[in-house]
Amino acid sequence: MKTFVEFELTKEFRDRFQEALDQRDSQFIRQSLEDVNPADITALLYEFNSEESKFTLDILAPDIRAQIIKDLDSETRKNFLKIYGPSELSPIINLMDSDDAADILNELPVKTSEEVLAGLDAELRNQVIDLLRYDENVAGGLMAKELIKARNNWTVVQCVEEIRKQAETVTKFYTVFVVDEQDKLLGKVSLQDIVISDAHKLVADIYEPDVVSVETYTPDTEVVEIMKKYDLESVPVVNVTGQLVGRITIDDILDVMTEQADEDRQLMSGITEDVEEDDTIWKNTRARLPWLLIGVLGGMLSARFMGLFEAELAQVTALAFFVPLIQATGGNVGIQSSSLIVQSLASPGFVLEGLGQRLLKVLFVALLNAFFLATIVFGANYMVFGNYNLSLIVSVSLFSVVVFASLVGTLTPLILDRFGFNPAVASGPFITTINDLLGLTVYFLTVNVLL
Amino acid sequence: MKTFVEFELTKEFRDRFQEALDQRDSQFIRQSLEDVNPADITALLYEFNSEESKFTLDILAPDIRAQIIKDLDSETRKNFLKIYGPSELSPIINLMDSDDAADILNELPVKTSEEVLAGLDAELRNQVIDLLRYDENVAGGLMAKELIKARNNWTVVQCVEEIRKQAETVTKFYTVFVVDEQDKLLGKVSLQDIVISDAHKLVADIYEPDVVSVETYTPDTEVVEIMKKYDLESVPVVNVTGQLVGRITIDDILDVMTEQADEDRQLMSGITEDVEEDDTIWKNTRARLPWLLIGVLGGMLSARFMGLFEAELAQVTALAFFVPLIQATGGNVGIQSSSLIVQSLASPGFVLEGLGQRLLKVLFVALLNAFFLATIVFGANYMVFGNYNLSLIVSVSLFSVVVFASLVGTLTPLILDRFGFNPAVASGPFITTINDLLGLTVYFLTVNVLL
Repeated sequence: MKTFVEFELTKEFRDRFQEALDQRDSQFIRQSLEDVNPADITALLYEFNSEESKFTLDILAPDIRAQIIKDLDSETRKNFLKIYGPSELSPIINLMDSDDAADILNELPVKTSEEVLAGLDAELRNQVIDLLRYDENVAGGLMAKELIKARNNWTVVQCVEEIRKQAETVTKFYTVFVVDEQDKLLGKVSLQDIVISDAHKLVADIYEPDVVSVETYTPDTEVVEIMKKYDLESVPVVNVTGQLVGRITIDDILDVMTEQADEDRQLMSGITEDVEEDDTIWKNTRARLPWLLIGVLGGMLSARFMGLFEAELAQVTALAFFVPLIQATGGNVGIQSSSLIVQSLASPGFVLEGLGQRLLKVLFVALLNAFFLATIVFGANYMVFGNYNLSLIVSVSLFSVVVFASLVGTLTPLILDRFGFNPAVASGPFITTINDLLGLTVYFLTVNVLL
Repeated sequence: MKTFVEFELTKEFRDRFQEALDQRDSQFIRQSLEDVNPADITALLYEFNSEESKFTLDILAPDIRAQIIKDLDSETRKNFLKIYGPSELSPIINLMDSDDAADILNELPVKTSEEVLAGLDAELRNQVIDLLRYDENVAGGLMAKELIKARNNWTVVQCVEEIRKQAETVTKFYTVFVVDEQDKLLGKVSLQDIVISDAHKLVADIYEPDVVSVETYTPDTEVVEIMKKYDLESVPVVNVTGQLVGRITIDDILDVMTEQADEDRQLMSGITEDVEEDDTIWKNTRARLPWLLIGVLGGMLSARFMGLFEAELAQVTALAFFVPLIQATGGNVGIQSSSLIVQSLASPGFVLEGLGQRLLKVLFVALLNAFFLATIVFGANYMVFGNYNLSLIVSVSLFSVVVFASLVGTLTPLILDRFGFNPAVASGPFITTINDLLGLTVYFLTVNVLL
């Protein structure tokens, strides 16, 4: 038995491995990686350059090599495979499932991709060609063609034969899908039921007819929701005529979930491109600039707006002191509100109760928060600055800003969602910029009335 | 075949269902929910109150009832089960897997929980009592006791017998775990291999000895990383002596992932408690106030700080106009930087390259962004306000703020992570508040030097 802690990537091992690479010491490399889980080897290779990684992979068994290349993240793999020729790639990709093969072919330059395709076994080639037609964000782009298909007039023994045939490829199966003569999906039988059923029973007698399926064009995010909702370890994919064309397994879904979470986090933090810390300086800069520019534009508008109140500011300089307080609070309240709504919109159990009722609740929460904050700030201000009128102006506008920012933070994602945009955009700099301007407006309107 | 779209919760159906509930029309309810997937019934019940939901559930088959109650989210279930007596709960929980049963017993008041426990079948009761010892955030709290355990001297036929025995409970299996006489985990056999192996072969001949396992006290987030890294559909759990005590399946992991994403989003948006839009007004208020107060405190400090420059502000009122611009940009840059670091820290492929090298890169990106923003703002300011000196002050401090905020945004999560805090805290109001103060300081220092 091997627990996950057994292979730990220590600095000593890394250095020793580097030495072996420098000396092209195949024997050390082969021995030290024997019995190491391919996922651990993948992590190790992130430490070395492409040439060194290729040297290591060439020493390993072909199936391990294929699994490691499959496991690399897309960006790394794209760069790494540049040093491989098509004739080296075909035998590696031949050992993969159709979905992984299609992902890799998608990443290669068109010419290389064509050459690799030509070198694949006929069956895999046809499967991959079929998969390449689909966009990567729909069920068709996630599915694999490998699956166990049984006719409902087969016996359990025939199913087992089919499983044995398919098991020659690398694939894991948990379910046998049942189809009719036209390949239309009828239902499924779990491997567990196959194991415990009498070998001469008919598939028709043991299959579950109620099976949740998705269509080739179902968006990946919807596939995630469906698999989570119905607690599925794999889901069959059908085409428009109801024919079974592939299956999606839960590990594909984990990747989609991680990507979604990353994307939402980036939207919330004002980064426009899918970017990682180890991307180039230029890509990192480009991903950040757009929202920063919008923020700067908001700041310039704020400056113009405050300019309108130059007379009041010149008269009572202390008015300027509280602009940061008002704006920061407005920003924080807005982000909180929009983030809760985004979460509600994302959770599948969420049902649109009357909009009026929800806004009323948001209003109550806002009024409570506003009351607490305004009272505390009034007390603190009066004690520190001893100016009753100024303290009153600050607290009245703070109160109003909290209420307005709550409503804006709540409504913006709902509106974005209604018009088909990702509502998570509204939990980022967008809502902050709006609330900065809103805060200033409320503040100086209050100044105008109360000063 | 049933695709997921077949049951759509329309307003008409909801109203008709409400009518049936009002008239206690069991027949309509039974008929309309026949063949509907339990997950869809769960979604429907979120529309009705506890009494109505219980009335509906009482009409359904016991196993469907158990599955729906299992699927409810924890908060809803806690409230819902208040109207059930212990004698009603025991038979329902008897139909569940040990992990789900333990989760529900954990949510019940102690007295009820004891009574329900007493009413369970002896085997399940012992399993649940064992599970209740573990914290919910470790592998022991996630695992189920139901698993198929085979000795390595068994034949495949004996395995199949064991699977048949276990299949009487509701559980899904994909893997048979292999143990020695002391119950120590030796390896595993996939159901697929059981299906295609000769019935008289020994388990010892077909099992995989290299199996990744976790320990009862492994944190749930680590279990997620391990299952993702090694692409596992289930992972065995062993105790300190290496004995097999349970297994965690991938659907349990999906829930942990969703919770993690929600928690991070809340940290990023300054919400301190795990709260949802449909929680009480008071709970919603309480979850928001702490960070708002910290923001307000930051605002008060800003006010005091600006007070130190009252003379300069009185002399050149326009200086105040650019405080929002400086602060908003500092805040946005800080959030972007910290969010990228949080993402790097979360991704398993991430390796700590030299800190110096990373900071150098962050610095380059910051310098580039700072250069673009400062240049654009200088041009715009000079055109709009026509004041060379003021435009220069604003751009110089904008430049400095972008660079400083990048460094603070990068270092804060790294420091938090080093000391064992969740670095996502640093993508929220925390970093904004720090950067607001930082921005003001830089701005007025620049004013002091250049005015």
